Amino acid sequence: MNQLDKIYAVILAGGSGTRFWPLSRDTLPKQMLKIVGEDTLLRQSVRRLNGFIPLDHVFIVTTEKLAQDIKTHLNVFGRNANQIKVIKEPCGRNTAPAIGLASIYVRKMDPEALMLVMPSDHLIKEVTKFENDVRMAIEGAEKDYLVTFGIQPNKPETGYGYMKVKEEPVPGLTLKKLEKFVEKPDRETARSYLEEGNYFWNSGIFLWKVSKIIREFERYMPQLYRGLEIIGESLGTENERERIETVYSEIDSLSIDYGILEKSHDVLTLQASFDWSDVGNWPALDDVLDHDSHGNIIRGNAIGLDNHNSIIFGSDRLLATIGLKDMVIVDTPDATFISPKERTQEVRKVVEELKKNGKEEHSVHRTVERPWGSYTVLEKGDRYKIKRIVIKPHEKLSLQIHRHRSEHWVVISGTAKVTRDNESFFVNLNESTYIPVSTKHRLENPGRIPLQIIEVQNGDYVEEDDIERFEDDYGR
Amino acid sequence: MNQLDKIYAVILAGGSGTRFWPLSRDTLPKQMLKIVGEDTLLRQSVRRLNGFIPLDHVFIVTTEKLAQDIKTHLNVFGRNANQIKVIKEPCGRNTAPAIGLASIYVRKMDPEALMLVMPSDHLIKEVTKFENDVRMAIEGAEKDYLVTFGIQPNKPETGYGYMKVKEEPVPGLTLKKLEKFVEKPDRETARSYLEEGNYFWNSGIFLWKVSKIIREFERYMPQLYRGLEIIGESLGTENERERIETVYSEIDSLSIDYGILEKSHDVLTLQASFDWSDVGNWPALDDVLDHDSHGNIIRGNAIGLDNHNSIIFGSDRLLATIGLKDMVIVDTPDATFISPKERTQEVRKVVEELKKNGKEEHSVHRTVERPWGSYTVLEKGDRYKIKRIVIKPHEKLSLQIHRHRSEHWVVISGTAKVTRDNESFFVNLNESTYIPVSTKHRLENPGRIPLQIIEVQNGDYVEEDDIERFEDDYGR
Repeated sequence: MNQLDKIYAVILAGGSGTRFWPLSRDTLPKQMLKIVGEDTLLRQSVRRLNGFIPLDHVFIVTTEKLAQDIKTHLNVFGRNANQIKVIKEPCGRNTAPAIGLASIYVRKMDPEALMLVMPSDHLIKEVTKFENDVRMAIEGAEKDYLVTFGIQPNKPETGYGYMKVKEEPVPGLTLKKLEKFVEKPDRETARSYLEEGNYFWNSGIFLWKVSKIIREFERYMPQLYRGLEIIGESLGTENERERIETVYSEIDSLSIDYGILEKSHDVLTLQASFDWSDVGNWPALDDVLDHDSHGNIIRGNAIGLDNHNSIIFGSDRLLATIGLKDMVIVDTPDATFISPKERTQEVRKVVEELKKNGKEEHSVHRTVERPWGSYTVLEKGDRYKIKRIVIKPHEKLSLQIHRHRSEHWVVISGTAKVTRDNESFFVNLNESTYIPVSTKHRLENPGRIPLQIIEVQNGDYVEEDDIERFEDDYGR
Repeated sequence: MNQLDKIYAVILAGGSGTRFWPLSRDTLPKQMLKIVGEDTLLRQSVRRLNGFIPLDHVFIVTTEKLAQDIKTHLNVFGRNANQIKVIKEPCGRNTAPAIGLASIYVRKMDPEALMLVMPSDHLIKEVTKFENDVRMAIEGAEKDYLVTFGIQPNKPETGYGYMKVKEEPVPGLTLKKLEKFVEKPDRETARSYLEEGNYFWNSGIFLWKVSKIIREFERYMPQLYRGLEIIGESLGTENERERIETVYSEIDSLSIDYGILEKSHDVLTLQASFDWSDVGNWPALDDVLDHDSHGNIIRGNAIGLDNHNSIIFGSDRLLATIGLKDMVIVDTPDATFISPKERTQEVRKVVEELKKNGKEEHSVHRTVERPWGSYTVLEKGDRYKIKRIVIKPHEKLSLQIHRHRSEHWVVISGTAKVTRDNESFFVNLNESTYIPVSTKHRLENPGRIPLQIIEVQNGDYVEEDDIERFEDDYGR
């Protein structure tokens, strides 16, 4: 039996990072952004496994809040997307509980499984090297070690945690033993690490036997272990969600590094051969994206004069800049962020402020992806809201009712099939229809090209939560 | 007879300055912006005359392109607005032709008239002082002098032209003689001007007898003079516009300073007692607007952390800034501008670039004022355009037809009266109607509150110039 048949991948995708606001939002965290490479970081993470771990061996751990959006996000993989299992945490509790929860699902699939854990929001371009490194790590995992993937530093980075590796080899093993984890160093310490050569960046990628990591949970995080076993008994039963919620309400938030890897005696470190970036903040893009001749990274509808070493992310709107140096400018349809590079990490304060003041700009974008397509809020007023709605061919929205608003629909491309109370009819290009308040209705694209409609809502209350769903193709 | 009865005011409003882009546009130049004070600079300029020059003695000189918008802009003065005469230049030719053209209109009203010339886009807050200074200038004008208003410098400004005044008084006059105009100085020269005390900023405000300035045109700008007399003969006849166009196609572009005031021997300078600013660029706002405790000027939907000495003009969209120093940020619904203060004058290069590339963002705003109200383009696509249209109570759009688009209208506030072919009907809140292509139609607000409709246009061509007008309350 091929060793690879026993590997299950666990992709951690619960992060709701604010560091890329306003591009990232509560409902569209960094892993779902297309900031580096041809696709989003999450989809790149899934594709990276292509060829050596089949999709039915892939688990994605995320929060309940993000789960539906993540499933929608994976629709690009077509009918195979359903093979990926999405594990829902009631809320984020850092990596130890997330990995713990995943481990009992993996064990249920195969008690002998190997478990490859990786973040969903890091960048690895060299897929073949990655695959080779995983194969190399199997040797250690098979011998009941926890294998961490270390990245050889190429600069004195102060933003990463480091792992110090023991110089003397372990008899009979290619991989070396981890000596200790080291917190983010200051610049001088980082320089010395770079010189010494046995310090590696902690990539957050791990490989181990599922049986081994569960034994280590039992030993070093017994409270979490007991919770996991309680959940484990319920897997596949009607009690599963309830058990998970109860356990999560009681467990601590802790990283796998602190909870297990610093304590375990059986940790090896593999020196990864691939380039890697955690794409941790806006300035990190300088390491992974191409620059123009003045050191700028420029995207979108931007016009610039004499800018230097700046990151300028425009949107459809025009962004005009002159004489910028070491700045970050990020424009989105409803919010723009401007800061010197060295201070972009303070963006979280902005996001906190927005949350505190009940503003929406931290949580949702003007355009929201849905399983059936997407909608864009063109304008929201006191008693009205205007949306452009795009429905993919052969998809349909849920059968629904609104208690506080009526809706006018005008078709601007494609053909709509509309259900309204007991009637059903077609609305063609340049035709319109009307859904009165408290009327059951459904919107559907029966055609082969995207259906676009303009929706004008009128009512006392025009928020998204005024919706009762009766039937839904997407189980919402 | 009161001397003031003979004064006519000429407000020069042809400027299409780009220095306040993206707030200013081709169709909404600086004089029509509300950047300083309670109202737009143009309307402040008109109000400044309130009490000593009646509106039927006020001329506004502007370009044909801007004339309709300027008339709409003056609607706030109610039925009196019609008393203001708007003189249309075929195109801008600097101040000498504009003043020359106005002078023959003024002469026709009263050959003995005094003519007070002033820019439309400068800031003077102290209206009483201004009025007193005008009264003082009359003395010189009555004695056949050209009186220029000089501003006592309070700092070594390098952005203004200066006027040097002769120390020795003219026998029998309070005002002193102008010795010469001086170009914008460098910092050191400006400092010496400030010390010497007989240098004044050129405010562009002048007072003279219309007969005197016309004599000076005859003497120093004979070509322009001949053109003006040709136009003069046609005033009030059907040939008037044609004559103006012919003359304007041949005359040179020149300022009144170079053309007349530098050459004339009869120029006096009044030392103005009022504070003044030409509000010439973004950093000039620092002189005339209040700052927060960190020296920032902040407007609109902005959230900022630790910014210093920056000008941050937000719009409805969220603008988040961190750690800015001496920056200018200007956000509008369709364009954002970002630059260090010291380089904002280069914004004209951005505007040139936009023009060259046929972009719209230099010329129109997303919201466009109309005599009957306004419209805002919410989105424009390949074959559709969505607008929110606001019609003021008792106003109506022209009776019109579109050859390439049909329109769906949904009322989101107020009540609409719609004319479509031969029928006429009301469309109430939350109702809709449809105007097919090539159908004569008219939209009207018969009510007492603003009517708002959402218009969804469908068609091969959805530009503003697809319109044939049949009847129009506003003579378009």
